[in-house]
Amino acid sequence: MRIGMIAPPWFPLPPKGYGGIELVVHLLTEGLVAHGHDVTLFASGDSQTLARLSFVYGRAPSEKIATHGHIEIIHGLEAYSQARDFDVIHDHDGLATRAMGVLAHRLVGTPVVATLHGPADPLTQEVLSSMRHGLRFIAISEYQRGGLPELPFVATIPNAVDVATYPYSVEKDDYLLFIGRMVADKGAHSAIEVARRTDSRLILAGKVNEEAEHAYFAEAVEPYLSDRIYFRGEVDHETKVELYRRARCTLFPIQWPEPFGLVMIESLAAGTPVIAFRNGAVPEVIEHGRTGFIVETVDEMVAALGQIHEIDPAECRRSVEERFGVERFVRAHERAYRTLLEEGPSWLTGNLPGPLTA
Amino acid sequence: MRIGMIAPPWFPLPPKGYGGIELVVHLLTEGLVAHGHDVTLFASGDSQTLARLSFVYGRAPSEKIATHGHIEIIHGLEAYSQARDFDVIHDHDGLATRAMGVLAHRLVGTPVVATLHGPADPLTQEVLSSMRHGLRFIAISEYQRGGLPELPFVATIPNAVDVATYPYSVEKDDYLLFIGRMVADKGAHSAIEVARRTDSRLILAGKVNEEAEHAYFAEAVEPYLSDRIYFRGEVDHETKVELYRRARCTLFPIQWPEPFGLVMIESLAAGTPVIAFRNGAVPEVIEHGRTGFIVETVDEMVAALGQIHEIDPAECRRSVEERFGVERFVRAHERAYRTLLEEGPSWLTGNLPGPLTA
Repeated sequence: MRIGMIAPPWFPLPPKGYGGIELVVHLLTEGLVAHGHDVTLFASGDSQTLARLSFVYGRAPSEKIATHGHIEIIHGLEAYSQARDFDVIHDHDGLATRAMGVLAHRLVGTPVVATLHGPADPLTQEVLSSMRHGLRFIAISEYQRGGLPELPFVATIPNAVDVATYPYSVEKDDYLLFIGRMVADKGAHSAIEVARRTDSRLILAGKVNEEAEHAYFAEAVEPYLSDRIYFRGEVDHETKVELYRRARCTLFPIQWPEPFGLVMIESLAAGTPVIAFRNGAVPEVIEHGRTGFIVETVDEMVAALGQIHEIDPAECRRSVEERFGVERFVRAHERAYRTLLEEGPSWLTGNLPGPLTA
Repeated sequence: MRIGMIAPPWFPLPPKGYGGIELVVHLLTEGLVAHGHDVTLFASGDSQTLARLSFVYGRAPSEKIATHGHIEIIHGLEAYSQARDFDVIHDHDGLATRAMGVLAHRLVGTPVVATLHGPADPLTQEVLSSMRHGLRFIAISEYQRGGLPELPFVATIPNAVDVATYPYSVEKDDYLLFIGRMVADKGAHSAIEVARRTDSRLILAGKVNEEAEHAYFAEAVEPYLSDRIYFRGEVDHETKVELYRRARCTLFPIQWPEPFGLVMIESLAAGTPVIAFRNGAVPEVIEHGRTGFIVETVDEMVAALGQIHEIDPAECRRSVEERFGVERFVRAHERAYRTLLEEGPSWLTGNLPGPLTA
């Protein structure tokens, strides 16, 4: 298949630090190339890939992500201008790019599928819904898909990790791990509370770049740092996997219904169990009692920590190999693309929705 | 010609109050229909037109203009999905819509021309520049065009007024007039200073909707209101033309290089001279000594007011008929469209620009 793969332009593939979407798009792209497909990757020019790389921005404009929304437009324009050259286009970028996908599909018939990587607020839902006769969608969890019943999904495909790049260890050091952006939604403050109440060592790692992240960090994290509670900043892949590998347990005290949660499967790949708050897609990832514990409160998280020795690191690793491996991930996408091709151009049967009242 | 005319979705055509872009797009659309063209107007469903009206939003979502940018995307998608049905598409909307125009042009070859109604900050310039091999542009003043030397303009076409809808009078009341949004850039504060220093009556009218407008109004306008300096709020067309018609003089103390300035030609159409600050397109509109005065400071504006009786209202009216009438405006657009059709699809000869460094 000739596949056009549109990554966001903001971080190179694979990402050097922060960049969950870029990481999974990288795995998918390289996997499809390995399966013999003719893949063109639209990403920043400093990306590494065995696919054909097409780019407008030679260097990922990461520092402009919050201010220069038009970069997405220019990036998407370059990709969709080549729509006739592909059997299928897979879009991982933002709403303006997806609108171009709808348009390209309606004008020249190329099937376009978009993975929903993030949550959909009511406005986003309205836009996505208006695109439902020009795009097909891939959900990253059943939780996410259930919240968007009006969208035409072709598949639910959870995120994946390349298990081979996560060294695995059954021997652990005596620390808890929290990895995530420094914002209230990710719950570093709850991890700190658990560490303080159990007098545990805790290592925190994550991005502190944007204003909201700085504010949260200064108020909810920094005052509690000590020789027992230690902040590593944003870490590269090697440091991250080493942190996972040696941790007693990863805390995932997520405060909002996140549609997936890559941290959980990265931790499991390294043989490290996860204690997570029941929220969003958590119950689809963690097998309670097998790969960690699903809890509702800080009290329960503290209690679960007392049982963490019951979880077998080998089972954690195996769970990821069975359910979140790259090969399975790539094959699920191939099936989704084939479904689209068999469907044929949906503009023959659908139209944009009728008049809306604003 | 089969013409697709894309108005912004935010205000109905013609606008009931604020809406300069909508007003000129309305004049153009109705003029083209009168010339026998097959015009489809993309605007809100509460618009009045003799063209074919195509819409997504039944009612103009004016109150969402600052917050719901995706409405532009949905609106533009509806329009450009029909790109094959037109000989030429004329886009008056925002950057996301124009990106769809580039894409439609590159995928199916329909020529797309975009009028630049506003100023272009450096970011906007970068985006427009990246679109230069897929769009042609119309400038609204030579001043505007001179600032964007890299864009492929097909014409400079100043805004127009329908002189017939501006009752004209040589008899004037004894007040000065300021019409414009209540923001510092438009200069209501300078108009007030001129009125106070000359002990003149002044009527102000204009939109106070957005937060910045409220803040400016409270600080720079409200404290000076009196029985001599009076604020009328946002006025409908009938009230506006009546205010113009009876004013001794319109003050246009513009504080930034505005690319046109519809207020000036509306005032002249009503036979009312204009005293304006030398900025942006002002010297292309006002003929110094014939239709008003171009000045640099409040002192000079005060001095010019002493000579305003030298300006003949009939000359003001005639100036608009000669230079800013609708018939001339419509014919200039027909010529621009024909140039595009003769040029042929520019994607045969051009490509998107090469790699950019972010």
